[in-house]
Parts: sequence; C-alpha cells; structure tokens
Amino acid sequence: MKNETEALKDQIKQAWDELKAQQQKVSKTQEPGSAEAQQFYAERIWPLLLELWRQEPQIYPLRETFDVSIHTLGTSPEATTLAALGLGASELYVLHTPESKSYLAQLQQDLGRSIYPIEIDKSDVTQLYQAVGEQVRKHPDKKIALDLTSGTKAMSAGMAAAGYFLQRVYPSLRVAYVDSDKYDATLRKPVAGTEKLILLPNPHEVLGDLDEHLAQEFYRAREFGKAADRYQALRRKTGQGKFEVYAALCEMYQRWYALDFEGASSNAQRLFNFLTQDAYRNHPLARHAQRLKEQKEGLEAIVALLKSQGFAEPKGVLWLTTTLLQLGEERRERQPVSAALYYYRSLELVLQHRLAVRGRSDDDPNLSPEEQAYLRQALSDWLGKPLEQIRPVQKLGLLESIALLRHLGDPALGQFAEADLRGYQGMLQSRNKSLLIHGLEVSKKGDVEKLQQFARKLYQTMREEAKLALSVEPVELM
Amino acid sequence: MKNETEALKDQIKQAWDELKAQQQKVSKTQEPGSAEAQQFYAERIWPLLLELWRQEPQIYPLRETFDVSIHTLGTSPEATTLAALGLGASELYVLHTPESKSYLAQLQQDLGRSIYPIEIDKSDVTQLYQAVGEQVRKHPDKKIALDLTSGTKAMSAGMAAAGYFLQRVYPSLRVAYVDSDKYDATLRKPVAGTEKLILLPNPHEVLGDLDEHLAQEFYRAREFGKAADRYQALRRKTGQGKFEVYAALCEMYQRWYALDFEGASSNAQRLFNFLTQDAYRNHPLARHAQRLKEQKEGLEAIVALLKSQGFAEPKGVLWLTTTLLQLGEERRERQPVSAALYYYRSLELVLQHRLAVRGRSDDDPNLSPEEQAYLRQALSDWLGKPLEQIRPVQKLGLLESIALLRHLGDPALGQFAEADLRGYQGMLQSRNKSLLIHGLEVSKKGDVEKLQQFARKLYQTMREEAKLALSVEPVELM
Repeated sequence: MKNETEALKDQIKQAWDELKAQQQKVSKTQEPGSAEAQQFYAERIWPLLLELWRQEPQIYPLRETFDVSIHTLGTSPEATTLAALGLGASELYVLHTPESKSYLAQLQQDLGRSIYPIEIDKSDVTQLYQAVGEQVRKHPDKKIALDLTSGTKAMSAGMAAAGYFLQRVYPSLRVAYVDSDKYDATLRKPVAGTEKLILLPNPHEVLGDLDEHLAQEFYRAREFGKAADRYQALRRKTGQGKFEVYAALCEMYQRWYALDFEGASSNAQRLFNFLTQDAYRNHPLARHAQRLKEQKEGLEAIVALLKSQGFAEPKGVLWLTTTLLQLGEERRERQPVSAALYYYRSLELVLQHRLAVRGRSDDDPNLSPEEQAYLRQALSDWLGKPLEQIRPVQKLGLLESIALLRHLGDPALGQFAEADLRGYQGMLQSRNKSLLIHGLEVSKKGDVEKLQQFARKLYQTMREEAKLALSVEPVELM
Repeated sequence: MKNETEALKDQIKQAWDELKAQQQKVSKTQEPGSAEAQQFYAERIWPLLLELWRQEPQIYPLRETFDVSIHTLGTSPEATTLAALGLGASELYVLHTPESKSYLAQLQQDLGRSIYPIEIDKSDVTQLYQAVGEQVRKHPDKKIALDLTSGTKAMSAGMAAAGYFLQRVYPSLRVAYVDSDKYDATLRKPVAGTEKLILLPNPHEVLGDLDEHLAQEFYRAREFGKAADRYQALRRKTGQGKFEVYAALCEMYQRWYALDFEGASSNAQRLFNFLTQDAYRNHPLARHAQRLKEQKEGLEAIVALLKSQGFAEPKGVLWLTTTLLQLGEERRERQPVSAALYYYRSLELVLQHRLAVRGRSDDDPNLSPEEQAYLRQALSDWLGKPLEQIRPVQKLGLLESIALLRHLGDPALGQFAEADLRGYQGMLQSRNKSLLIHGLEVSKKGDVEKLQQFARKLYQTMREEAKLALSVEPVELM
C-alpha cells in the first residue's frame, strides 16, 4: 500500500512535468490554461490524483473519519471531490448554486457515490448558514465535517461562521478545506500532488474569545461563580495565565457576595500576589489596583469583625453593611422578598453597632426604669396604641433599638422626624412576618423602597462620620 | 455626476464587448485568458472601472462610510482595490501572504494612497483571526469594515469568523466582499461593470443563534431573568414568536424563584395560552406540557396558601416547601449562609403545617400544663441542661415545635431518635445567630448539610402522606 502510494505520487509528478514541458514547447502565442493543457490535466493527471486520494488522502494535521460531510460547490468541483474523499463520509450534502448545479454529475461520478444536493443563492450568506445549521442539527450524534473549499467567498464565509459557531454545541464538528502547497499561476491549477485537506482549528477555541465573552457576560450579570468557572476553563484551554488572574477576581467576588469573607479575603490576597508579579504588570486589572486594595482591606475588616463577634468596630460594620445593602440592591427589582431581608439585616447591623458603641446590646439592653418608660411611650406613639397595651421591653427589636438610640442622643437616629417613624413602623414591624422568616407575607415593592431608604440613610450618616471611602462595586474587567 | 457615471458604464460595456469580439475573431487555438486579452483588460477596461468606482462605487444594499478597512489580499488585487474604493476608509490595513506581497505596490498605485501591510501565513486561520482582532481593538471608536474578497479560503474563513464575532462587541463593524453578477469563465474575470461591493449581513444576528446560545447558558445557570431578557431581545431582533414563548417560561421561573408567586402564576397562564395555540403546537416546550401544567397548579396552590395566611392546606405547603428546598439546593455549594436560611424556613414551614393541622400555632401554642412540662423536659434532655434552667415555653421555636409534635404523636417527627435530636439541637438553635438574621455567624457547610437532611426528611414524609408528585425543576428547553 505504502509503495503503491509512493508510486502514484511519482506518476503524478512525472505527468505534471510532462505537461509543463509541453507548454514550454508551444509557441509564445499559445497561452497557458489552454484547452489542450486542460485536456491533458483531465485525462492524464486527474485520474491519478483521484486514485491517490482514494488510496491515501493527504490530510493535515491527522486523518479523521466522518459520518457526514457538507460541502459548498462553486465552479471547481475537483477540489470538492478531493475534500469528500479526504473526509470519507458516507452521507454527503452539497450546497450548490444554480450556476454550479451542472458540476454535480461529475462530482458524483468521480466519487462513485450519490450526493444530496441543496440549492442556495451564491450571495446569501444567511441562507447558506441556515441550511448548514439545519443539516447539522438533523445529525446530532454523527461526526460532521464542513468543507468550504469551493464556491464564492460569501459561501465560504457563511460556512465558516456556521461551523465555528456550531462547534460549541457539537464539539466533534470540523471545518475543512483543500489547500495546495504550490499554485501554478499560468495553468491556474494547484501543482498536482501538492493538494492537501486541512482540518482547520477553530480560532474561537484557540483564542477562547467566545468563552471570554461568555465569562464577561456572566461577570456583568454578577454571576461570579459561573464567570470564574469559565475563566478557569479558558486558562486550561489557552494556557494563558491572564485568565487565572481574572478567575481569582471572580472567585473573590463570588465568595464575598456569598458572605464567605474568609474565602474572599484569601482570594484577594491571591489576586494581589498575581498583580505584583512582573508578568502581570500590564494586566488590565492592574489599573484597578487601588480600588482592589481597598476592597481587600474591607474584607479583612469584615473577617476581624466576625472573629470578634462584637459590633463596636466601625470599619468592619461599615463594610459588612455596604455588602448587605449591595446584595439588597441587586435583588430589589426582581427578588424583593430577598432584598428586604438584606435591607433589614443591614439596618439592624447599624443599630447594633450604634448600641454597642454606647455599651448596649439589643439582646440584653439593661434598661433603666426611665428608659423603659421612654421606650414604651415612643412605641405607643408610633404604633398608635394606648400605653397600657405596650408590654415592658425585654429585648430590643428594630423599633425599640431606634427609640433607645434616639433617647441616648444618637444623631444618626435623631435625624428622623416622629412622623417619618410612624410611617416606617409597619415596615419595621413586619420583618418576622416575611415568608423568609416566620410568616407567609411577600414584601411589596413599596415597602422594600422605604426600607432601603431608611437603611441607606443610616449607613450614609455612619460613613460620613467615619470618613471612609467604601466601594463594593466589582471593578471593570478592562 | 449622474450622467458622467452612466457614460462611464457605457464605455465599460463597449470596451468589454470589443474584447469579446476580438476573442471571437482569434483562431481557435488562440485561447481565452491570453496575454493579449489580459493586456486589453488592463489597459482599456481596468482604468474605466477604477474611474467608475472612484466616482460612484457599486454597493449593495446601501453605501456606508468607514474610517478603517481591513482586507485580505491574495493574487487578485483588483477586487481588493474595488473593495477599498467602495469602503472609502482613510486607514487601510492589508493582510497579505509572502506570495501576494508583490501586489501591494499595484494596490497602492491604483488607490492613490498608502496602505499598511501585515504579513500572515495563507493557511493559518488563527493567525489571521488574531491579526484582525488586534486591529479592530486598536480602533475602538472607529467604523471598521472587513473585506474578505481576496486571499485563500482559509483567510476568508478567518476574516468572516473574526468579523461576525467582533460585531457583538463592535456593532458598527461590517463584513464585506466584492461579488459580480456575471463571471466570464473563458476570460476568468467578472464581466466588467457587474462588480458590486456587498455588505454582508451577520447570520448570527439575523438568526439570533449566538443570543439564543447565551439565553440557554443563562437558563442553565438558573439566571432566568437574564435569560428572559435575551429571549425578549431575540423576539424583537428576529421577529420569531417562538422566542416569546421561551421568554414567558423564563419569566415564570424567575418570578417563582424570586417568591413572586402571583406573578409566576400569571406567567404560567400566559405560557399555557401560547402552548395551546395551533401556531405553537410544535414548539419544543409543548413536549413538557404535562410537567408545566403540574407546576402551574403548584403555583396556584402556593398563591392560595399565601392568601389564606393559614398553614393547614397541604398542597400549597408542599409546593412552597419544595421551592424553598430547591432555593437552598442551588445555594448549598456556593452560598451556604443563604442556603441555610432557606432550609431553616422550609423546615419551619413543615412544622407550622403539622402544628396547624393539629389546631396549634407556634406563635400562640396554648399549652396545657402537662405539655409545658413535657416540652421543658425534652429541651433539658436535648440541650443537656438542668430542668431548672429551662424557662417556661411561651412561643414555639424549632426545637419546641419538634418536641410538641412528638408529644402529639406526629409520625413525621416520631421517626427521629432522641440521639439524632441531640445532634441536631445546636444547628436548630443557631438560626438567630446567623449573619443574615441577628448575629455574626456564617453557617458552616457541615451544619448546612445536617439542616438540609433534616428538612428534606420531613418534607419527604409529608409528600408520601399526600401522595403528590412535585417537581420544581425547570423543564429542558429542547
């Protein structure tokens, strides 16, 4: 077999040399590409080429076997024949134009098998794209090759676009075309014997741009976990370290927003280790180093707060509060029940902090008789209930905490008018009735808005007092 | 101007006819594509064509102005020249191969301007793709056209893949090529005057397949809101009603998982209205009609439950519980703090239901002295505390509810051994200490696992009793 193939290759070379020698002899007015030369090629060279490709098609990088091949067909059917032989599929679909319809017969004859023709418009890239997609979807479990050798550039472009996209859903699909090492310009043919079928790599896959696009979309959708997965996959696929840096960033935000502050903090450290390496000095994220540093310190402050289990430390409380507010913001439009939960907690956290710096706790408030009397009167006013219906205060809920802090002269709580607090009381009292706490109520958007305003006002007062710049917003990827 | 253009077109037609007439006269051995014919074309026809395209390039569908054009260059520079004239950019980049380098001079001369050459390998689709991407990214605010007329099929394929992908990020980018209405096979040239520059549509955009792919990715990531947005955009972009059906599905799940059961229920109704229309009888979602019907009824049961504000109705409680468990499952790996919250609530909901069918409530349990004594003893055992440290029970927390239900002979709670409950007590007591409730504790994965097991066991017992099949899992899109 090997020897037979080599012999064939020699014969092809000899025939080609003979053809070229003939052409040299012909008078200068006798031009190349002549009918005689074409005839010689058709009668002497093409049968040998066919035989060679039937025996051992020339394929780069490696021969693969396909079940289905789909071809564009223009006015050079020989290339399509070689492609079909090289791909070796048992089902062949040929996208031809009205102009190239006449070549179908020769193609079938050279291949010795029937093909399935599909007529398309030679300039309609969308139609071709759709026809290819249709055939591919009809053969979901088969190994399919798309050959774009023949046909107009619009046809090849449509074929390439379809193939490279469909590979995402059908990873075994391949895009191929027949190229030649040398082209004979005078004969307008590839030098016989130098043709080879090339299985093209998918540039989207090689460079990972489509995956990167998806990763960015997930990031913008604040699906940091999914974005991190994609960046890790990109790292493996492309071998490019820059994607690992992005993955570290995504993992940091993923853990942060999942309230895994220790995990997020160690990711932040990892991210910084990358960004201080020379190799990543020009990484797009290096431009956000300052903001990332602040966020890293914010995370460390939260970790310290959780370790202390006390509410007095302002930096940790501020960063945790803004995190909870941010989680609320993200859910405000589409998940008001969850959003309310985060807002309630951020509001309560500020109150717990304000109590703690005044030596109090909501769990064990240690009220003086005078404070007890003040609180009950305030509750009676806000709730519009007679004083005798207000039970002695044991623990501080949201309303009681607010009343006590006002009594203790906290300016953050002093900023609200009595009328405001009467307006807020229903919302402040209904936390426990939420579907997510103990009840069956789903928060209304209007209530969530009120809650958000109240919590944000408290937070802002506290931030101004602390003179801290906090930004939990994820940095831009670019 | 108009008349001048028409005159030029006439001249081109005359010159072409003259060329063809000459060829007819030449002896039969004198073949087409001859040096003489080529010379005639170069001297008489090409200058006219150039003049025509300088004055009024032939563009389909409409002329647009570009700042930058990027071209592939093979061995037919005329087509590239026409493309460049048609695109009218002031910055030109030409991707040439070692073989086509020699045509750069002619190209610059015909265009009367300098171009920027970039050498690539004619078969390396990835290299070309990368080179194009690089240039496009260097000109983020410019209007760019990619011309794939000249060069090998691999070059055109890479150009098309790059162009169609980059359009997502740079929507003003266009892919173009020069086609002709008629091709003269004997002269191997387009019939002069029939050339036109075609600005190709993007099949991804026309058919929306890339957007659909993204929508599906979001759906699988359970980002139903984002998936719904994409399907709505697809509906607008492609005019295809099937995408609206998908959007209704996504909106149903989005609202469902956001605990907006009324909204979800009306989306379910809308989805059903679609699926019972003749037009959508073959919609892929129609295959899941039975499951969707069950889910629709489940949603209606939850809506009824929330309206009743009572816990006794089993169907609504079961559907709500499985929803909360599902929300927990989704968060178990990556957001254990949130997951714990959903598990706690689902567990409590089952307990509230079991109490309600026995005429009790956790808020106002109405305990007999004998029950009070039983509960305190149970708590003392589980917590390992002396009885005198256990205060009289006022309201039922999780532990107290479990104790009372066991006392009342509820088989769902009777299935647990005393030792199990001692193992669960820490986890059951710590709900209020969670960062998301009143404390600063973040749930540990081990605790979340225990909680999940406990809640799921209760739910399963209840489901078996009710003999209801419930599946909150989103249906497959296909």
